Amino acid sequence: MSVARIAVVAGDGIGTEVTAQARKVIETVLPGTQFEDYDLGARFYNRTGEVLPQSVEDELAGHDAILLGAIGDPSVPPGVLERGLLLKLRFDFDQYVNLRPSKLWPGTTSPLAGVKPGEIDMVVVREGTEGLYVGAGGVLHQDTPAEIATEESLNTRYGVERVVRDAFARAQRRDRRHLTLVHKTNVLTKAGSLWARTFKAVAAEFPEVTTEYQHIDAASMFMVSNPQRYDVVVTDNLFGDILTDIAAAVTGGIGMAASGSVNPERTYPSTFEPVHGSAPDIAGQGIADPAAAILSASLLLEHLGHHDEARRVSEAVAAEVASRTAGAPLRTAEVGDRVAAAL
Amino acid sequence: MSVARIAVVAGDGIGTEVTAQARKVIETVLPGTQFEDYDLGARFYNRTGEVLPQSVEDELAGHDAILLGAIGDPSVPPGVLERGLLLKLRFDFDQYVNLRPSKLWPGTTSPLAGVKPGEIDMVVVREGTEGLYVGAGGVLHQDTPAEIATEESLNTRYGVERVVRDAFARAQRRDRRHLTLVHKTNVLTKAGSLWARTFKAVAAEFPEVTTEYQHIDAASMFMVSNPQRYDVVVTDNLFGDILTDIAAAVTGGIGMAASGSVNPERTYPSTFEPVHGSAPDIAGQGIADPAAAILSASLLLEHLGHHDEARRVSEAVAAEVASRTAGAPLRTAEVGDRVAAAL
Ligand SMILES: CC(C)[C@H](C(=O)O)[C@@H](O)C(=O)O
Ligand SMILES: CC(C)[C@H](C(=O)O)[C@@H](O)C(=O)O
Repeated sequence: MSVARIAVVAGDGIGTEVTAQARKVIETVLPGTQFEDYDLGARFYNRTGEVLPQSVEDELAGHDAILLGAIGDPSVPPGVLERGLLLKLRFDFDQYVNLRPSKLWPGTTSPLAGVKPGEIDMVVVREGTEGLYVGAGGVLHQDTPAEIATEESLNTRYGVERVVRDAFARAQRRDRRHLTLVHKTNVLTKAGSLWARTFKAVAAEFPEVTTEYQHIDAASMFMVSNPQRYDVVVTDNLFGDILTDIAAAVTGGIGMAASGSVNPERTYPSTFEPVHGSAPDIAGQGIADPAAAILSASLLLEHLGHHDEARRVSEAVAAEVASRTAGAPLRTAEVGDRVAAAL
Repeated sequence: MSVARIAVVAGDGIGTEVTAQARKVIETVLPGTQFEDYDLGARFYNRTGEVLPQSVEDELAGHDAILLGAIGDPSVPPGVLERGLLLKLRFDFDQYVNLRPSKLWPGTTSPLAGVKPGEIDMVVVREGTEGLYVGAGGVLHQDTPAEIATEESLNTRYGVERVVRDAFARAQRRDRRHLTLVHKTNVLTKAGSLWARTFKAVAAEFPEVTTEYQHIDAASMFMVSNPQRYDVVVTDNLFGDILTDIAAAVTGGIGMAASGSVNPERTYPSTFEPVHGSAPDIAGQGIADPAAAILSASLLLEHLGHHDEARRVSEAVAAEVASRTAGAPLRTAEVGDRVAAAL
């Protein structure tokens, strides 16, 4: 395999701290990997007034993957960086598979009583390029009593089918081979029907995968009352946003939550990032947990075809987390060092 | 106060069983109340092919309130009764305040470790007549590779302002006087902006209420990691659907979850119903818990201005639930009898 070229967008706050550890770990398992740093995020925006210059996006497009830390700072109006950078990359780089595994790891504690490490192990495959995230809609008669605002969810057979097929293929490769479709077909009858019919059609290609359908409200409830039941879940962009945060919460919060915004064909680079934000309150102190960032690096390695390295990295993170002493202070760099040393 | 006229739509499955207890309790605290039974739901639909004849809807409109049990059966295609009856009543009767209190009652157990009865006490005020529930959108080129499906969320200043004002007024009457707006302003920028600006404008009328904003994904996570923080929450139709099911889950499931679809002006009747469904698996055995149905009756009494009766009913339910012996079999009618006897 040729040397991987990875664009690093460490970003803001603890993003820079945790990304340094993720990079260290990739360097350990894949010596020679080329890293290019890109200064984007709140600092860049405040200095230049730009979110993602076209020339920078063109350069990013030339990489095999993007390792992202965290984007955002209270100094930037909400939505600017999210839409101008994170969502723009998902759409422009056709990252239609938004991959979010949730595991209850040994050494971590679920807020749910009686749920033990190892019992929760699921992957949510969230659609990444359609639905309510397309930005369609408008405002009329703003700031008058006659104001209306619309948001349009756009869904195509093309877009739904490719992500559903990806989810089936992932379920097929797992032990339990179970796939749950989550939508709200009883209310969103148009998009819901497209999702349900497409799901049924693709299911015929995967006879070994057992399937199930749940409404988003019921799934949100079961995600709390019985998260053990899920193996792979496939759902639309907005429902996936919500469901993955609940999945993160029941597996002990966003400390271990990794994600990939994936273009499976590798026509464009995919982005890998921890689900947590830039956490300005603890930034600069070297106390942020890099576990989610390193697990995101593991997803990156997996995506680039380095399956063995990916597995070793996630096992090393799991072992490090399991070896932590409750109450002992956590140092970002030490966690990275311990994981790297174990590899 | 004149004698209340209540339409009873007991519905399907355990709906009939739990509604009988709710009715018994209303008769106890408000003797002389007039009840008219309406046979609607899956049985009616299977017999007649109709969901809600216009003549029946006209009769319902003449009542002070509707006491509803549960609607639905596997024999009816999903969506038919939901859209044709439940949602139709919400829209036609302008039930724009969808009220869903969640309390962790003494005698009940949260699935969350370390959360004690009394610690969770919130009300979600969900918009009931707008958003993605309006049914706008369509399907083009169905069952071809070119198929697209759209869903449109329609939001008006009129509709948002009235439900936000209702939520502020409710927060104002509570001890903590705290109101959280939940939306997704960083992605749904058009509707999100309307909600956020309207929320800010109405907040000026309620200087004693402290306010907060959260994105739906973050709120879904906090609802699991720290549900104690919520007092009153106001949100749109779809986010409210999801959030109230999480709230029900963390307060021990839907066994105690009551709801009201309220037209505050009383121009039209409001509907009160347990959040749980018709549960065909346990129907007819007399073992369904009527607590949520009786608590819905308490919301009905409150809405009709019988504040003292409403409070006594919910206290009697709480006492009955707290007095239950773990593991002892529950009989629907006995729960109703014990609550009625305590009044
Ligand atoms: C930051 C925001 C736009 C984003 C989303 O809604 O997708 C985030 O919540 C996520 O889940 O990656
Ligand atoms: C049955 C369904 C249409 C309904 C909704 O989505 O509002 C239900 O989930 C509810 O919460 O009352």
